[in-house]
Amino acid sequence: MKRIIYADNAATTALDIDAFEAMKPYLLNEYGNASQLYSFARSAKKALTNARKVIADCIGAQPEEIFFTSGGTESNNWAIKGTVQQGADNVVITDNIEHNAILNSCDKIKHMGYQVDYLSADEKGVVKPSVLHKVITNKVNLVSVMLVNNEIGTIEPIKELAKISHEYKALFHTDAVQAIGHIPVNVNNLNIDMLSASAHKFNGPKGIGFLYIRNGVKINSIIDGGSQEFGMRAGTENIASIVGMAEALCKSCTQMSETENRLRKIKKCFIKALDNAGLDYILNGSDNCAPGLVSISIKNVSGEMLMHRLDLKGICISTGSACNSINTHVSHVIKAIALPKEYAKGTVRISFGKNNREEDAQEIVDAIVGILKK
Amino acid sequence: MKRIIYADNAATTALDIDAFEAMKPYLLNEYGNASQLYSFARSAKKALTNARKVIADCIGAQPEEIFFTSGGTESNNWAIKGTVQQGADNVVITDNIEHNAILNSCDKIKHMGYQVDYLSADEKGVVKPSVLHKVITNKVNLVSVMLVNNEIGTIEPIKELAKISHEYKALFHTDAVQAIGHIPVNVNNLNIDMLSASAHKFNGPKGIGFLYIRNGVKINSIIDGGSQEFGMRAGTENIASIVGMAEALCKSCTQMSETENRLRKIKKCFIKALDNAGLDYILNGSDNCAPGLVSISIKNVSGEMLMHRLDLKGICISTGSACNSINTHVSHVIKAIALPKEYAKGTVRISFGKNNREEDAQEIVDAIVGILKK
Repeated sequence: MKRIIYADNAATTALDIDAFEAMKPYLLNEYGNASQLYSFARSAKKALTNARKVIADCIGAQPEEIFFTSGGTESNNWAIKGTVQQGADNVVITDNIEHNAILNSCDKIKHMGYQVDYLSADEKGVVKPSVLHKVITNKVNLVSVMLVNNEIGTIEPIKELAKISHEYKALFHTDAVQAIGHIPVNVNNLNIDMLSASAHKFNGPKGIGFLYIRNGVKINSIIDGGSQEFGMRAGTENIASIVGMAEALCKSCTQMSETENRLRKIKKCFIKALDNAGLDYILNGSDNCAPGLVSISIKNVSGEMLMHRLDLKGICISTGSACNSINTHVSHVIKAIALPKEYAKGTVRISFGKNNREEDAQEIVDAIVGILKK
Repeated sequence: MKRIIYADNAATTALDIDAFEAMKPYLLNEYGNASQLYSFARSAKKALTNARKVIADCIGAQPEEIFFTSGGTESNNWAIKGTVQQGADNVVITDNIEHNAILNSCDKIKHMGYQVDYLSADEKGVVKPSVLHKVITNKVNLVSVMLVNNEIGTIEPIKELAKISHEYKALFHTDAVQAIGHIPVNVNNLNIDMLSASAHKFNGPKGIGFLYIRNGVKINSIIDGGSQEFGMRAGTENIASIVGMAEALCKSCTQMSETENRLRKIKKCFIKALDNAGLDYILNGSDNCAPGLVSISIKNVSGEMLMHRLDLKGICISTGSACNSINTHVSHVIKAIALPKEYAKGTVRISFGKNNREEDAQEIVDAIVGILKK
């Protein structure tokens, strides 16, 4: 079989082998329900406690501030829907380049009668603090801006945005799904109140994630039932996946600077190869960008066509919205950054991960050039 | 190490080895995001489609009626919270022995201003159709009654309850978490509109489940974002766990009558041994009961003490609420069936599963007798 070049790590990543090995005992032997009181369940409960501590340590949080969920989408839904208070006059501020998990959650609360205001990102995908400053009032309960944009990789000025939010007594949430495990994140340094993460974006398993909720922040549960997760998220704990997530995050954080350097190098090679090929393209996003993510818009080309032709050559990349390429229209993010029309439809996202090699960059560019020359 | 007798299968079950083997390729190699369009993701997408069909077949549903969730708790939350319509005059009927995932979801919608009425189960834990008949009106939108009670095992007359609900144009949902994979369930025979299930109750993995929603039933999503699950449940698909769930359910259904017979035999042995020991106890639940589940209330005994002492002998059983023994007060179910005071606190649940042997019954009773004689 031909080697596949997988360069869609912003969509999902390969499960790290050590994470898999960490999961195995909890899949095969230690299957006790962590909420039960007998000894057999203690190993599961201990693993849960340990995973919570490992994850908290990775982002500078306290263990009791980590709440396990089924993934980034649930975490984002929780942060938005859990913050609005029944009957109160709530106002939420977000922006126009958020992931659909945020935007569609905001649509839901708007439908429930709450006010949602949208900040406009600039042409580099930056949600500028000055823009928030103009809009925010004392009536705002929550501001939610992502840490790294999933389509173009822009790193947002979260620390400044959180500072402004706090000046107006609003809570600050960040969707950090594309950031956690990839760039250093410390919740105290950023001074944020809530943060969403998803394991499968940092070589952990699918179907597991967490919401960081700062001690003292009042938020309602959205999944009710048993008293798991300190009474805040019901459902039998998914121990194997939680353990896998902790292992994957710990490993990602330990190797972060090394991986980051390597990815930035691959990205540089990729862009250099594009330039050498003389392609007419725009490099999307700001200079302060996620290490492995490259979004380019090639003039007078169909991104969808390119994705399919690259697929025939064994290369996996993305077009349209990040996690869900089934929608192949020009995405809300690409619309928001106001690309010239002749470039917008030619947008593709190449996202390198820790399993990529430097040669992959040149191979992908060669493949693109080969396709476009035909 | 001493052999452990695990008799808490209503809390959780061991992952079936074939289910684990079925999951492995999707954990290790076929990690593509099922929503992506390139070939590498096709194997994941195919597995998703196949699992949906396998599961649908097991309960007599159509594949497009199966919606994957993070487990039974989420499914129950979805059925209750997704049915009430913003601004409408909704009435929901449930009963007083439901799982907390239903009861606490109902609390939430009550808090939002909706009306919830509670049917009282009789002393065997049966929610009688005549009781529903007295309460139901044309204003009721949804009736939710569990298929098998998780604490005492009573099988509810779902078919009759659904029939009455439909006569009044109400939707009917059943929490079938303790039923699926254990007793035959056919959604068309029962004529129900929604059904919740959880994989880890039938030897599948934790953190995965599904909600069956009959074609044509209108319900809102509660986890919003990407367009996964026919636009009804957002979040990157947890393929490995979905595949594991399908394998576990298929196997459980294939072996169902054999397992059921064996479990009923173990249960019989257990009760006979109890009687032979001359214990003063009440056998809870109706005669029409889940095959492996035995709930007994022993006179003037502390169920919690018994559970801990059995633990010291390597025997895992439950007390209090089923999935969450951390709350050791007399559970709402035990209160509902109005046991004499001197028995209520001595309630324990023994739940046999496919890994139990017939000798386990006698061994557990011997251990109980040994503890109580001291």
